[in-house]
Amino acid sequence: MDFSSKLLENAVNEVSRLPGIGKRTALRLVLHLLKQPTDHTKYLSEALLHLRNDVKTCEKCHNISDTTLCDICNNPKRKPEIICVVEDIRDVMAIESTSQFNGLYHVLGGKISPIEGIGPQNLQIESLINKVEKGEVKELIFALSSTMEGDTTNFYIFKQIEKFDITTSTIARGISVGDELEYADEVTLGRSIVNRIPFEQSIRS
Amino acid sequence: MDFSSKLLENAVNEVSRLPGIGKRTALRLVLHLLKQPTDHTKYLSEALLHLRNDVKTCEKCHNISDTTLCDICNNPKRKPEIICVVEDIRDVMAIESTSQFNGLYHVLGGKISPIEGIGPQNLQIESLINKVEKGEVKELIFALSSTMEGDTTNFYIFKQIEKFDITTSTIARGISVGDELEYADEVTLGRSIVNRIPFEQSIRS
Ligand SMILES: [Zn+2]
Ligand SMILES: [Zn+2]
Repeated sequence: MDFSSKLLENAVNEVSRLPGIGKRTALRLVLHLLKQPTDHTKYLSEALLHLRNDVKTCEKCHNISDTTLCDICNNPKRKPEIICVVEDIRDVMAIESTSQFNGLYHVLGGKISPIEGIGPQNLQIESLINKVEKGEVKELIFALSSTMEGDTTNFYIFKQIEKFDITTSTIARGISVGDELEYADEVTLGRSIVNRIPFEQSIRS
Repeated sequence: MDFSSKLLENAVNEVSRLPGIGKRTALRLVLHLLKQPTDHTKYLSEALLHLRNDVKTCEKCHNISDTTLCDICNNPKRKPEIICVVEDIRDVMAIESTSQFNGLYHVLGGKISPIEGIGPQNLQIESLINKVEKGEVKELIFALSSTMEGDTTNFYIFKQIEKFDITTSTIARGISVGDELEYADEVTLGRSIVNRIPFEQSIRS
């Protein structure tokens, strides 16, 4: 691309570093900002900077939060002994929108993926095992997507906690195999939480 | 969407104000930034702010520029008496990439569109007419997209300058009718500049 302005070129380059945003799309977005009042760009930049600099991770469940403990972990009406294990914060948002779950979450921050170089030590797995070891947990619900990586991660965790006397389950697959959790509709996802099945049963079938 | 963080919600809202970016995409982009080093967000925000606050518009052709006169208008090797009329800066970039044009540009900033409430007074049309009146122009090449709005805009300008003794042409349509200029391949676009036809011929056909 031939840019007539270094400032423009620089902005397009930065925007196109975002995943799924090519140079053409970046140019379109940046030119849109130039046509809008200056405040739009100001608010956008400030919102991104504030988020990146000030956002916290809940020290209990690793959900994104503005406070040390997130609203879910802080809610006395929720049952701390039931923990739903999810991949990332979008899954928390998806399950919360069903209003079918009143336990807590544990956000792993990804799935075990040898191809992408993501091992157990890169995820929040140790802190989950610790919760189980301390006897805080009665039931673990695995709600990772049913991909190869999701299954591997479930199984890795299961192997480390099977000696403890807790219930393990996976959400019922009303959701088709291979689908991402966050794209499931609320009814299907809500039902899959209510009808969760023992984890051992899920690996046998 | 149930956000666990006001900072996150705010960032997603600002990003999703961009055209073509829904809430889900905005969330994906913002979570990506959270996984990257802080500098990425810093550079992105700064690049957008610098562009929005410091970028100039060339006072001659209205192209985006870091200086009062853009590099094209400033180039003594280009012929100032041949002016290519385009809709926006992306068209300048597209035509420049063909290396087939050595005149100057005039960026209108849009097309006349009654539906969107864009009239001649909202575009850089008066300054174009002024150039013609001052006798600075020997040839005007209309390179707007061949949509209803593009044709209306061409015709509006043509009516105001037909009394002057200048050549008017439109770029040859190797490009299929209705296609946006910026998506044309360089060869087709380059050829359409070389084979430009008199404007009056184009409205008769
Ligand atoms: Zn929490
Ligand atoms: Zn210029």
